Amino acid sequence: MPGTEIERLIQLLARLPGLGPRSARRAALHLIKRRESLLQPLAEALSAAAEAIRVCPVCGNLDVTAPCAICTDERRDPGLICVVEEVADLWALERTAAFAGRYHVLGGTLSALDGRGPEDLNIDTLAGRAADPAVTEIILATSATVEGQTTGHYVAERLAACGVTVTRLAHGVPVGGELDYLDDGTISAALKARRSI
Amino acid sequence: MPGTEIERLIQLLARLPGLGPRSARRAALHLIKRRESLLQPLAEALSAAAEAIRVCPVCGNLDVTAPCAICTDERRDPGLICVVEEVADLWALERTAAFAGRYHVLGGTLSALDGRGPEDLNIDTLAGRAADPAVTEIILATSATVEGQTTGHYVAERLAACGVTVTRLAHGVPVGGELDYLDDGTISAALKARRSI
Repeated sequence: MPGTEIERLIQLLARLPGLGPRSARRAALHLIKRRESLLQPLAEALSAAAEAIRVCPVCGNLDVTAPCAICTDERRDPGLICVVEEVADLWALERTAAFAGRYHVLGGTLSALDGRGPEDLNIDTLAGRAADPAVTEIILATSATVEGQTTGHYVAERLAACGVTVTRLAHGVPVGGELDYLDDGTISAALKARRSI
Repeated sequence: MPGTEIERLIQLLARLPGLGPRSARRAALHLIKRRESLLQPLAEALSAAAEAIRVCPVCGNLDVTAPCAICTDERRDPGLICVVEEVADLWALERTAAFAGRYHVLGGTLSALDGRGPEDLNIDTLAGRAADPAVTEIILATSATVEGQTTGHYVAERLAACGVTVTRLAHGVPVGGELDYLDDGTISAALKARRSI
């Protein structure tokens, strides 16, 4: 029985990942109760984001500048490109602060099931960047899922002609992981890739 | 490494119930990817809600009119008032379409732990409404939790002087519930309140 403005708000909130109809109702009431401290700031933040955020034409990252801050950062190695599926993966890598090269966001994985072919991903632009002689290594950081690995193999094949070094992330036991809880595939991979200490 | 506009959006989304930092990042990317279909509509819905939604001065419900649509609906029995803790509870009762009276939203429960006393709830306005001779019955629909029941008892005592009939929701086996999974308190309550068939 809530008014149409509330109904509309709940419907839109329910479309966010992780929120269903019930939690969308809870979120809407939470917001309305905190009109000054949360509802209005969130409305403004969404408007600001809608206006300011651009897709980087070079790497596909999201930022308020185009090209993005990473592509224009002179301190980052332009010879090293890390290929990820999504912007979320780029953020995950950035949080580690372990990578000082640049990125390339594919925008997803190849998927016969969902009808996503190579032309739906940013692979052509990657091939273009790889052709630059300044680029020395391309690291494939697609997920270790079937779709992520298929995509990685496809990208590696496409890049073979460029003569650039193509590497992928190591597979193995996650740091803090217990062997007993790991799947067979991970354990075999870790065993095969064992290193002397 | 995301731009400040994205950071701010993520921080605000993380303050919604049910969303943590990780799901707030996912939600932010989901929104930015759907700028036209979701981000902008949500920004507008939030602004519209901030502007339009009022707290009903009679019952405490949220609506775009004050008094709310329920308080002004002539087809609803003005002699029957259902007392609930929160607007979400009012919505839950309205979804059943089983109640055709009016409501009173307390705005929470009494809680010594959280320092919420009677003066923090809409109890005085309820006593005022109960004094109206047109009101014949007040149904306490607070939660069957310790705090909800304490609040219900307090409200019932406050209303005793008005001479109005005060009732509460029945306790018993939830429809579809299996005895084996129910707590002892519910089973005893259902047994005590057994009815002939």
